[in-house]
Amino acid sequence: MADQKLDETATGVYAITPTPFTDAGAVDLDSTDRMVEFYIECGVSGLTILGVMGEAHKLTQEESVAFTKRVLAVVDGRIPVIAGVSSPALGPMAALTEQAMEFGAAGVMVAPMSGLNTDEKIEGYFHAVCNALGDTPVVLQDYPPSSGVWFSVPLLNKLFAELPALKMLKHEDWPGLKKITQFRAAEARGERRRVSILTGNGGLFLPLELARGADGAMTGFAFPDMLVQVCELHAAGDVGRAQDLFDAYLPLVRYEQQIGIGLAIRKETLRRRGVLASPTIRAPGPKLDADDNAELEDLLQRLERRLNELGEIFPM
Amino acid sequence: MADQKLDETATGVYAITPTPFTDAGAVDLDSTDRMVEFYIECGVSGLTILGVMGEAHKLTQEESVAFTKRVLAVVDGRIPVIAGVSSPALGPMAALTEQAMEFGAAGVMVAPMSGLNTDEKIEGYFHAVCNALGDTPVVLQDYPPSSGVWFSVPLLNKLFAELPALKMLKHEDWPGLKKITQFRAAEARGERRRVSILTGNGGLFLPLELARGADGAMTGFAFPDMLVQVCELHAAGDVGRAQDLFDAYLPLVRYEQQIGIGLAIRKETLRRRGVLASPTIRAPGPKLDADDNAELEDLLQRLERRLNELGEIFPM
Amino acid sequence: MADQKLDETATGVYAITPTPFTDAGAVDLDSTDRMVEFYIECGVSGLTILGVMGEAHKLTQEESVAFTKRVLAVVDGRIPVIAGVSSPALGPMAALTEQAMEFGAAGVMVAPMSGLNTDEKIEGYFHAVCNALGDTPVVLQDYPPSSGVWFSVPLLNKLFAELPALKMLKHEDWPGLKKITQFRAAEARGERRRVSILTGNGGLFLPLELARGADGAMTGFAFPDMLVQVCELHAAGDVGRAQDLFDAYLPLVRYEQQIGIGLAIRKETLRRRGVLASPTIRAPGPKLDADDNAELEDLLQRLERRLNELGEIFPM
Amino acid sequence: MADQKLDETATGVYAITPTPFTDAGAVDLDSTDRMVEFYIECGVSGLTILGVMGEAHKLTQEESVAFTKRVLAVVDGRIPVIAGVSSPALGPMAALTEQAMEFGAAGVMVAPMSGLNTDEKIEGYFHAVCNALGDTPVVLQDYPPSSGVWFSVPLLNKLFAELPALKMLKHEDWPGLKKITQFRAAEARGERRRVSILTGNGGLFLPLELARGADGAMTGFAFPDMLVQVCELHAAGDVGRAQDLFDAYLPLVRYEQQIGIGLAIRKETLRRRGVLASPTIRAPGPKLDADDNAELEDLLQRLERRLNELGEIFPM
Repeated sequence: MADQKLDETATGVYAITPTPFTDAGAVDLDSTDRMVEFYIECGVSGLTILGVMGEAHKLTQEESVAFTKRVLAVVDGRIPVIAGVSSPALGPMAALTEQAMEFGAAGVMVAPMSGLNTDEKIEGYFHAVCNALGDTPVVLQDYPPSSGVWFSVPLLNKLFAELPALKMLKHEDWPGLKKITQFRAAEARGERRRVSILTGNGGLFLPLELARGADGAMTGFAFPDMLVQVCELHAAGDVGRAQDLFDAYLPLVRYEQQIGIGLAIRKETLRRRGVLASPTIRAPGPKLDADDNAELEDLLQRLERRLNELGEIFPM
Repeated sequence: MADQKLDETATGVYAITPTPFTDAGAVDLDSTDRMVEFYIECGVSGLTILGVMGEAHKLTQEESVAFTKRVLAVVDGRIPVIAGVSSPALGPMAALTEQAMEFGAAGVMVAPMSGLNTDEKIEGYFHAVCNALGDTPVVLQDYPPSSGVWFSVPLLNKLFAELPALKMLKHEDWPGLKKITQFRAAEARGERRRVSILTGNGGLFLPLELARGADGAMTGFAFPDMLVQVCELHAAGDVGRAQDLFDAYLPLVRYEQQIGIGLAIRKETLRRRGVLASPTIRAPGPKLDADDNAELEDLLQRLERRLNELGEIFPM
Repeated sequence: MADQKLDETATGVYAITPTPFTDAGAVDLDSTDRMVEFYIECGVSGLTILGVMGEAHKLTQEESVAFTKRVLAVVDGRIPVIAGVSSPALGPMAALTEQAMEFGAAGVMVAPMSGLNTDEKIEGYFHAVCNALGDTPVVLQDYPPSSGVWFSVPLLNKLFAELPALKMLKHEDWPGLKKITQFRAAEARGERRRVSILTGNGGLFLPLELARGADGAMTGFAFPDMLVQVCELHAAGDVGRAQDLFDAYLPLVRYEQQIGIGLAIRKETLRRRGVLASPTIRAPGPKLDADDNAELEDLLQRLERRLNELGEIFPM
Repeated sequence: MADQKLDETATGVYAITPTPFTDAGAVDLDSTDRMVEFYIECGVSGLTILGVMGEAHKLTQEESVAFTKRVLAVVDGRIPVIAGVSSPALGPMAALTEQAMEFGAAGVMVAPMSGLNTDEKIEGYFHAVCNALGDTPVVLQDYPPSSGVWFSVPLLNKLFAELPALKMLKHEDWPGLKKITQFRAAEARGERRRVSILTGNGGLFLPLELARGADGAMTGFAFPDMLVQVCELHAAGDVGRAQDLFDAYLPLVRYEQQIGIGLAIRKETLRRRGVLASPTIRAPGPKLDADDNAELEDLLQRLERRLNELGEIFPM
């Protein structure tokens, strides 16, 4: 897949990466290198950088560029990398996109700017975006709790039919199971080409989403290896085993669902796994205290025990 | 127009009435009688009761029913009365509607329930509403700052084309001038029947809205007589005079635009005009203090002077 | 506890009950009777009626009164019942409260009205509420995702110190684990009396919340028997077993976390358990389709298997 | 006032400047030069750059820096310049601040990041901001409709008492007249030092705000000359004349109050006044159409006539 562009056939797990910082808050390029290797070893199909969970909005432009360049250099074409380029203005979005693609990105992800409160405005916006980005492959992020923008299935069908640059739906509307079913139904009826659906929300509904027709996950849960395994088991038809494995991790998946502090939990877990040198979130941001750390420790020990019962390996 | 139903030809000013309370907070039926006569003397084309400004959500069902009954008895068929029946459930909405229509209402007004964040959901909702209300004439209230629900012009066109029970658009999207132009353009193109547009927002843009194609105003500004005069001057082609008169009141129109306390200002002005016995808003709600009263007094005196300059009568 | 008032010592599970409807949408009093007995057999410590999940906003006042009366008659003093009385106006709230207390309620629950966006406004509001409700015991509902009103711990401390009528915090801020710890710390420092904390959010974090100092749960998860068992195991010091049991149900707890359709899932589950005659939600509202039902069926079967592994009984 | 820092004594009009673009959307430095001279000729006391109305969020960092540098070079110490530096992260905010101050800014303006929904969080945030910015003079922007963050008067008093770097309150809460009165009352009671209050909201309530204790305006209305004159008349005690002049412009002030398109109206007006070469707003953004332009033209002609009646000069 080296140096290829993202297309509608994408499947599996695209890990949303955090941006590693040192304890002092500087971008940590050593941890970045280690993190890329970690994700590849976990078996992910791709990476997504500079999303909300990557604290993209807390980076200077120079830092974003440097981080993007480093990630793509380390990946070196082994897996596709998608860069988040959401921006309130199309000019800067196009500039960011151009640079990411030059460094070797496979595509970009765009969440709608805030204030798009009718189908008409959303449609106008994505036409303008695709016009500004040329033939760059685009992932449409459907994440209302963060964007405040809501997509109906008829609107998504229209957008994907009209805009060939849209290759993938990053689906994290909530609740969203029926949405996947309805979106796939339009394809089954031949109304438009089949596109890729990867799901987010920290993976909270992953087995159910796969059963509904998702192609995989794009999320940042601190055990991407589990997400990969669940997708593979599901693809192999071993749906029950996929669910058993997932359920073992569910207490932790749920624990990461705490808005704000969830990212701190995720970064601390990645620190414990030897990936990040520091769990730092840029100020202003939350930090884990002793109670939180004890709770996380306990959940990890319970996970280990449960995996042992299942005959699975605890990957820490 | 006695005992007639609302239809698409409605024009002029439909005053949104407050609900009068005594100082102690009880519904004040004596003031209600006086208020109805006041509005009719002002020359309004109709009344709208139990809107947000009527503190409908602060009334018990018994009080709503008693107030509706009294207003319709006093009006006695002289002008059409529209009853606000917005409700989170269709059953109670239908029950309220049935009762209001029995008392002699000309139609009902429905604002969409909260949470309708896509065109598809809004469309489904208004189909369900019209289905539940039978052939009752319905005013669709388009007031996003209050409802959190946004209508595009294409969606409004669709709704008015599909649902014959919809007779009037109460337009108070903001900004909304172009919306009126675009909505009227669909009619000019013959895409659907012409319907009535009355505008809200306290009248802040009334002369411009009339020029854009509105048929009048549906709002609660404490000088409905001015709104009537502006609509009449406009209809008679004296656009400049309409604007001069409006601009004289604009400082006061603007003063009423203060969310929350605006209703207290309106009720106090109606008290000063001899309409209401008390300016009371039901708790919890704002009250004017000495500073506010002095400010209002000063704005009224300035209005009087300005009307004198224009050779107009100060209606207090 | 017959006929006693709610006080600060409340512990265990207060089930938030749905309001049963027939297929046609009428309030179903037969199912109401059965439901009350079901909850008592599950071992709950109390009931909470007419919350958001009880579709209180979709009932007419007559229906609310009739339902409250019936529930309290069937309970007949066996356990305390709390009535939701949230309302945008204090007068109607006081009237509702008076009636519920006359029927035998142990206290009322109040969520703040919308628009209280500063500490000062919230404080003023709860003083006004407690003033209007006299010495009725009040549960303060802290549920920002629904109310849009946010309480800091210092503000909660102030409110509970100033207002003796506040007996219980219904805690469902999210994330909220640290909030429980901080709230309890103020009591440990002797800053105010100890009050009851019951947690909501469908029970998603219950074992962690108990460890942080919560006294139990007030939520509507369709297996209140599990919530009771978890609270009892925790109280008995068997924290690990409490968590094992909880984790078995977690896939289902998570499945109910789908806003909107979550209530439909809950009602359908209660129908399958023989409690409700119909899973109907009042229009406009969601319904489960064949996919949803198959998903639910599968999750219930998986739950049964897992409970068997744990040597626990599947309560269906 | 050359090269001085902002302090608590600031009065008069600080014009919020747009960022000029060419028709093609590039930053227009020629118009920037002209714009600076225009504002100084209008008699403003200061400038504020890179606010929301300056489309700061649509500029790349390079563009922001280049624009800041150019404005400060042209101003050359004649009046104080405040730079907007609001940012979701403290590090980049401090870097932006440092650069602006090096170029000669008198201070910076900070709107709270979104999500600060309790007094406690807001207080923590501004302490962190002031800690990060050292002794740079800071304007606290209180603009809830844009930030979603609400300040009570007790909280503002606390912040200004605790943080000496806060020199000015940019007040645009709405409604906000009583807030000014209450904020000034705390100073009269000696609870903290007197600070500067400049008001925003396009100037819609300016004469009333001055009467309540504001020291002037910080807003972007396209006739800053009027704002200056109103402030001067008010300071000279000619309150009635100040209001007469203001009321003449009020139809236009109101016309600019249209969210979104308001900025297009403002830029077009500045183009007509010979200040900007192009009214361009960066995509995605609104454009005036023929109807809008005719409306604006008519409002300007009416303004000219009204000013003539008042014996005032029409400044175009």
